[in-house]
Amino acid sequence: MQRTASVEAVTAAGGAGVSDVMYRVEERMSGLLDGYGHLLAAHAQATISAGGKRLRPLLVCLASGVPVHESDQLVSSAVAVELVHAATLVHDDVLDGASLRRGRPTVVAAGGRLLATATGDLLFSRAFAELAENGSIEAVRALSRAASGLAAGELMQRADAWDASVSLERYLERCRLKTAVLFRGACELGAFSGGAPARSLGQFGEAIGLAFQLLDDILDVTGPPERTGKPRGADLLDGTVTLPLIVGRGRDRRLAELELRSLRSAEQAADVCDAITATGALEVARDRALAVVARAKETLPLLPAEQRSALELVADGVVERYS
Amino acid sequence: MQRTASVEAVTAAGGAGVSDVMYRVEERMSGLLDGYGHLLAAHAQATISAGGKRLRPLLVCLASGVPVHESDQLVSSAVAVELVHAATLVHDDVLDGASLRRGRPTVVAAGGRLLATATGDLLFSRAFAELAENGSIEAVRALSRAASGLAAGELMQRADAWDASVSLERYLERCRLKTAVLFRGACELGAFSGGAPARSLGQFGEAIGLAFQLLDDILDVTGPPERTGKPRGADLLDGTVTLPLIVGRGRDRRLAELELRSLRSAEQAADVCDAITATGALEVARDRALAVVARAKETLPLLPAEQRSALELVADGVVERYS
Repeated sequence: MQRTASVEAVTAAGGAGVSDVMYRVEERMSGLLDGYGHLLAAHAQATISAGGKRLRPLLVCLASGVPVHESDQLVSSAVAVELVHAATLVHDDVLDGASLRRGRPTVVAAGGRLLATATGDLLFSRAFAELAENGSIEAVRALSRAASGLAAGELMQRADAWDASVSLERYLERCRLKTAVLFRGACELGAFSGGAPARSLGQFGEAIGLAFQLLDDILDVTGPPERTGKPRGADLLDGTVTLPLIVGRGRDRRLAELELRSLRSAEQAADVCDAITATGALEVARDRALAVVARAKETLPLLPAEQRSALELVADGVVERYS
Repeated sequence: MQRTASVEAVTAAGGAGVSDVMYRVEERMSGLLDGYGHLLAAHAQATISAGGKRLRPLLVCLASGVPVHESDQLVSSAVAVELVHAATLVHDDVLDGASLRRGRPTVVAAGGRLLATATGDLLFSRAFAELAENGSIEAVRALSRAASGLAAGELMQRADAWDASVSLERYLERCRLKTAVLFRGACELGAFSGGAPARSLGQFGEAIGLAFQLLDDILDVTGPPERTGKPRGADLLDGTVTLPLIVGRGRDRRLAELELRSLRSAEQAADVCDAITATGALEVARDRALAVVARAKETLPLLPAEQRSALELVADGVVERYS
């Protein structure tokens, strides 16, 4: 039997407390940008309300304990993490010139680069304002560490773009920075609101964040586009080298000799995706993601059974998407 | 006798404590970005070390008391404020496509938009990390409030671009957001490190920040370019309507009928600057800046004489640049 570890399922497993907090997170985010000008608020709001999985706020909740005890500190922590995530998405879309995200026009497509850059900056500063309102200085420390990592990861991705010889180690470090540090931050912030050890929950968060990114990179090769919201091989066309290609180029000489810049069309990118798939590289990448999740679950600290189950469900969920 | 209220003069007036702290601020900023990758660090570092007046860190120092008592909290506060300022400059240059700042290539010119956006984000998150390391939650609150204002102000400027009918009130609100809120934040952070009342020092900071922006907008009309580092009328060519034009268009029909988008060259912009100057609008703007500074000095709370003098010197300095 296949478990579907969607956010809804985990929310249900986490009991009424989780859905109460998640509801307050949504409410808080939608009221948050009032007073920042109609235009800005509209775009920032559209970004936030476009939704997404709310996986990071959910992790904040579950890391704080199950059943979740609603508190202003917890809600603010969850909101702050999601706002940093949203800010990153808005800036990433500026850099990529992306026109759609989650089926809606991106801020950069709807309002231009200027508006999108300012919107991202505003979301970013509101994240810290929100945390400072109800959080502790150690929470600010954790979130700013995560935010620095995200910026460094974004940069690393740009620095390594088009370089097909990028090493596995460097790829994993990039995943850690661009994705895993914020999952770590989410778990740390949750732990601060609850009573669990922040350090080990943070490590758990970092591991499942890495697995999340590994799976994202697999989905870029497998699609289907109607689930991922982007054409297969979009990373390849962006010059972003990920694990499937790293493994594939060790197994197929044509892939090893591939010049990414020569790819011009979605069709060509899809052909490369097929070649990567044929090498068995996706299984290697998926096995690694599963191993990371398994190890993450093993290293969970001593927690109440309900909390452990809910966190394990999220961990399984990040590698079971679309499978 | 004309007072030259340069940072150097104020630093001297503030005694050894100020220069010690300012030295530690520089030292701290240059060590700060180690560990964020060679490329990123290089660009962020270049931005920081290109200097500038360090007026905001100086305000943090002076608001904390004179003689300044060096503490980690004070140094971190001063660094955090300057990093937020630097982040804003980097993103502004991306939006403006500016190629030079302070006589050096901008990050966007040297490394491209991608790198510059990530560099700005990193500087921004390092600001909060720095503050969280040694500061209080109320300091984070003040800085995040200021940072949100900066983003909103940037956006307001873009929203109002090319609209010559922008009102005085809206112009002043834009100045408050894009400049004055960070001066307010600097004074509040300083007050938290010392013992003076943060609220009234914050108001003082906001007032001189407004005066600073008023003078900046005057200097855009008067030049000289070799002092301001940009051609006369650069704001006009960017579509940014400021007080000199707002006043001028009430006094000269040609200015009232001017279509900013029709300006194509630096020569045409310089001609408009001459027309604005001929209306006496610059005197009106300068008088307003002086009045704002005078009122700011009056509203300073009860402070030790040395601290008051140093703060007054900075206040006078912001409206005496290049005069």
